[in-house]
Amino acid sequence: VGCFARLRIYEENARFVLICLILIIYLLFGASLFNWLEREHEVEQKIEFDEKMQNYRDKFCGDKNETSCDFDAFVEFISNGASTGLLSSRERFDYLGSLFFSATVISTIGFGTSTPHTSWGRLLTIIYGVVGCTCCVLFFNLFLERLVTGMSYILRYLRERKIQNRLKENGTKPVTLLINNEDFNESSSSCEGHMDNWRPSVYKVFFILFSMCLCLINLSAAVYSIMEDWPYIDALYFCFISFATIGFGDYVSHQKDTSNYENPVAYRFLNFILLTFGACFFYCLSNVSSIVVRQLLNWMIKKMDVKVED
Amino acid sequence: VGCFARLRIYEENARFVLICLILIIYLLFGASLFNWLEREHEVEQKIEFDEKMQNYRDKFCGDKNETSCDFDAFVEFISNGASTGLLSSRERFDYLGSLFFSATVISTIGFGTSTPHTSWGRLLTIIYGVVGCTCCVLFFNLFLERLVTGMSYILRYLRERKIQNRLKENGTKPVTLLINNEDFNESSSSCEGHMDNWRPSVYKVFFILFSMCLCLINLSAAVYSIMEDWPYIDALYFCFISFATIGFGDYVSHQKDTSNYENPVAYRFLNFILLTFGACFFYCLSNVSSIVVRQLLNWMIKKMDVKVED
Ligand SMILES: [K+]
Ligand SMILES: [K+]
Repeated sequence: VGCFARLRIYEENARFVLICLILIIYLLFGASLFNWLEREHEVEQKIEFDEKMQNYRDKFCGDKNETSCDFDAFVEFISNGASTGLLSSRERFDYLGSLFFSATVISTIGFGTSTPHTSWGRLLTIIYGVVGCTCCVLFFNLFLERLVTGMSYILRYLRERKIQNRLKENGTKPVTLLINNEDFNESSSSCEGHMDNWRPSVYKVFFILFSMCLCLINLSAAVYSIMEDWPYIDALYFCFISFATIGFGDYVSHQKDTSNYENPVAYRFLNFILLTFGACFFYCLSNVSSIVVRQLLNWMIKKMDVKVED
Repeated sequence: VGCFARLRIYEENARFVLICLILIIYLLFGASLFNWLEREHEVEQKIEFDEKMQNYRDKFCGDKNETSCDFDAFVEFISNGASTGLLSSRERFDYLGSLFFSATVISTIGFGTSTPHTSWGRLLTIIYGVVGCTCCVLFFNLFLERLVTGMSYILRYLRERKIQNRLKENGTKPVTLLINNEDFNESSSSCEGHMDNWRPSVYKVFFILFSMCLCLINLSAAVYSIMEDWPYIDALYFCFISFATIGFGDYVSHQKDTSNYENPVAYRFLNFILLTFGACFFYCLSNVSSIVVRQLLNWMIKKMDVKVED
């Protein structure tokens, strides 16, 4: 009997507690990391910003007192205009803008470059979002299912050819580790019926998906760094933030006036395709790698669950 | 033989194509909806904004020409300051701020109130995010598993009592529809072992989860509308946008100076708890309801798959 069983903690609960602990430690680690990386730059920027601000204040209100100058009111006015998007000449809720807004809601990217400002708009965003996010989750899940099925199909074909080659050489040994994971049971139980029960290992699928994501993100970053004139590292950062559906909104593609792009319609379409595929592939990657992490947790629990008495 | 089989389209592929079509139609519908709801307000706001802007321009640069006045440069300066957060007196990357930033990355909410500005910060956000999002997806999945297990446990207990009552009355009829969904197979196969194979219907779980989410979002909205002094509908909008991990960043809780809150430490903690539970419950809801939508798709495919010949 292991110590978890003695403490009346079931494996499933231990696993949940373990992931909570890991996440808390990971968050604290992240806090230290970003504090260390960003703090100095922030302080420098802040000092520079405040200096410039004082210069502007002197310039615009040099001889007047604050009440007659309205400097702070103006700053607030501009700041609100910037955050609501009114400052930009680009229209937020023309038809294509609304389409973009709808897409940011249901994909849960939420760049925040356009947000509803009327009460009805906000209320209907909730209703629209509940239905839309559900459908989008289903879309991502079905994409994952189709992708893993396709991958299994190809890997099985390759494996069969390999085995045939092996048989010719009169040698037989097991080729791949089989992991009976529910997700993989389900997703590969399609086209081929019961002909062949072989399934690719979750590690192999993870490795292939990871490589595909790496190619896709680099390709997309190259496209965006050319089209938006961003440094490559910033384009890479934008791609990750969008594909992982984090969507900070500090970098957003296709936000300049259309005159800035050579072929705005084609670029709009390409942008849509890249973001959709990126989000799909990253969804697949995070799901498959979460299975890998789950295996790791199970292994950790087994290690920790020392046999206290037999 | 149905028409899909004749066209050599397997059910799984038909389902995927169907969800793609539904999403495209839903997006176009959303575009019309939000265009209709928000367009007028946006145009009005824009006119008002431009008028005020012209007044300010006249006030600050009335007698000077543009080059000597620097008005546009100043507007851009403030606008950048607002979007990078330098304008606010609040520090973005002190330890607690960095913790908040890390949490917005791994939960994929991404409010965007604090974003990395150094190249190293951006690069490490990618690496931190890949690992963190994976762990967070696993956390959400394990939460879903634990929640459905708990729910099954309670529902089974209630059902057994009901059956015992029925038996006393000498009447027997089936109580609940059983749906053999993989997710529910897995998630309820814990504590009780093989004692009882009964599982709650996915519709029942959906209904309970939906009610729980409704309670949670209303409770949270009440808390935020009091603490942040937002109208109730705006607080509701903020809760949905955060819980669904969309995170536009137009409304963000706990962003005022701490002096504005009665008990800032308790509120910070409550804020964390509400956002975590909200995101967990909404993840569960969107997963369970995506199963319901999947059933609906299967039903639609069956309807559409007319028998052409027998
Ligand atoms: K987001
Ligand atoms: K966001």
